[in-house]
Amino acid sequence: MGARLVSPPRMSELAPHRIVRLEDDAVVVLDQRLLPGEEADLRCSTAPELAEAIRVLAVRGAPAIGVAAAYGMALAAERGDDLDIAFETLAASRPTAVNLRWALEAMRDDPTRERAERIHVDEVERCRRMGEHAVELFPAGARVLTHCNAGGLATGGYGTAVGAIRAAYEAGLVAQVWVDETRPLLQGARLTAWELEQLGIPHAVIVDGAAASLMARGEVDVVVTGADRIAANGDTANKIGTYSLAVLARHHGLPLVVVAPTSTLDPAAATGDEIPIEERDPGEVTQRFAARNPAFDVTPAELVSAIVTERGVHRAPYAESLPRETAAAR
Amino acid sequence: MGARLVSPPRMSELAPHRIVRLEDDAVVVLDQRLLPGEEADLRCSTAPELAEAIRVLAVRGAPAIGVAAAYGMALAAERGDDLDIAFETLAASRPTAVNLRWALEAMRDDPTRERAERIHVDEVERCRRMGEHAVELFPAGARVLTHCNAGGLATGGYGTAVGAIRAAYEAGLVAQVWVDETRPLLQGARLTAWELEQLGIPHAVIVDGAAASLMARGEVDVVVTGADRIAANGDTANKIGTYSLAVLARHHGLPLVVVAPTSTLDPAAATGDEIPIEERDPGEVTQRFAARNPAFDVTPAELVSAIVTERGVHRAPYAESLPRETAAAR
Repeated sequence: MGARLVSPPRMSELAPHRIVRLEDDAVVVLDQRLLPGEEADLRCSTAPELAEAIRVLAVRGAPAIGVAAAYGMALAAERGDDLDIAFETLAASRPTAVNLRWALEAMRDDPTRERAERIHVDEVERCRRMGEHAVELFPAGARVLTHCNAGGLATGGYGTAVGAIRAAYEAGLVAQVWVDETRPLLQGARLTAWELEQLGIPHAVIVDGAAASLMARGEVDVVVTGADRIAANGDTANKIGTYSLAVLARHHGLPLVVVAPTSTLDPAAATGDEIPIEERDPGEVTQRFAARNPAFDVTPAELVSAIVTERGVHRAPYAESLPRETAAAR
Repeated sequence: MGARLVSPPRMSELAPHRIVRLEDDAVVVLDQRLLPGEEADLRCSTAPELAEAIRVLAVRGAPAIGVAAAYGMALAAERGDDLDIAFETLAASRPTAVNLRWALEAMRDDPTRERAERIHVDEVERCRRMGEHAVELFPAGARVLTHCNAGGLATGGYGTAVGAIRAAYEAGLVAQVWVDETRPLLQGARLTAWELEQLGIPHAVIVDGAAASLMARGEVDVVVTGADRIAANGDTANKIGTYSLAVLARHHGLPLVVVAPTSTLDPAAATGDEIPIEERDPGEVTQRFAARNPAFDVTPAELVSAIVTERGVHRAPYAESLPRETAAAR
């Protein structure tokens, strides 16, 4: 392990245009439902088709669906479609992530291909800057636990939490990544493990219920996740199970680091109570029995050790620093 | 819901001999790997065949594998097999549950069909008594969270945690049961939901990562689980994910109730550190990527609100009351 820490292998990049791009007559996304078994594109020729692709999670991850929706608005403009209808159709596809609405509003003012591509390039560049900022939060030889997929697939390139892990790995700081499989849709086992494999970063998948046990054994140093929406006070909505990790991390004296771009901050939500939580089809959990399937949870700010955006590392009290950042970013 | 609380529907019993029985030339178990899709028997004609059935989890649950192993010893005696070899073969099938060795030792002294059947009958009767004792721990209108399967399937009839839920439901106290699906093998989604469906007890399956979120929303009143081994100080080994629930319950001010027969108590283990934790095939988690697959975890006694055995309700300090109970039971 020592040699690996000193000299990490070369990284294999998951190219941004491979994840989501605008061709002449369609938004094309890498269908994340089929990964890692099959790498296939899904072509969306209209805003309603793209909204459906977002709804069924063919493209997912808060920043990535913002990028995809931006391309969808540019496509609608080029087709001569009604942009108000395209906006509402795409905005209604998923309720929790705030980046979607952020990107749509930016496109309403300038519904061009160039603007959408700039949103995409900016999102990836923000990830790189988040990675640079986050490195200071990793101890040497870090055993890192992450949840769901906050990688390049979720952002249109590089990733938030996975981007931070990658930057820390390149700095020689990461010994091991524990990947929560993240039921019900297994974005950790299917997507994050697939990305880490391509990046050559040592990792192992665990069932979500095993995280606490690894913490108790002293095999975790830091928990790193992305976010779908962050309220003004720092309360953080992310994939169901994140709040569980936050409580467990606090119990074991471990930091929980949230990595997210400013497009994830929602100054209109004073606290997490104002963030809508998507309840998805119980069939995602079990076909046979009654089920509840909340797709996200909210982690209270008091359980969040640091929030990393492209502008730097925030610490509590978040209610002071986050609104300043939101204002500066707009 | 009020009417249901006043007058629960009649219960449909999962018959003990349906779960595990000794026929003329084989131990026959209901193959739990196939449930709930298929109800099929698995015939084990020798101790090695039965040990394999235990190893692959065709029959599982700490008390149930003790019962099955007892029948296996009686079968070996009737076949004229070497009983020391049968003992060691069955004892080696799974490491964490202590009931297995307890039943084998009882059978070594009296390797008859009658002794094995008495162990089985006693195990079910203990479950009924645990249920009676546990009722006092349920508030009226309780929303109960349980993990894995500690039902009739796991004990050879009636169940420990599910038996307690059933007794409380018959007493009009249970409004809803949340069933952790319990990855990787989904014993909650497949087995506990199937049992609760037959018993007519209202329930819904959740992913393991959603338990914390339900607690935070105030939708859980009590957490009830079984156990695979309880150390002399009350540290409790149970299915991976139980410790996670224990930390989460404490954070939310909820009781964690462990329901287990005295055959689960291990006076030889002073604390949980002395309980061996089975690491199972990573392929149970994911076929494609590296994985870690600890099958159990240990919940420190300080996080356990009560331990219910057939003799009554224990409260901390367990190091005083559990050894007395162990001595009285032997």
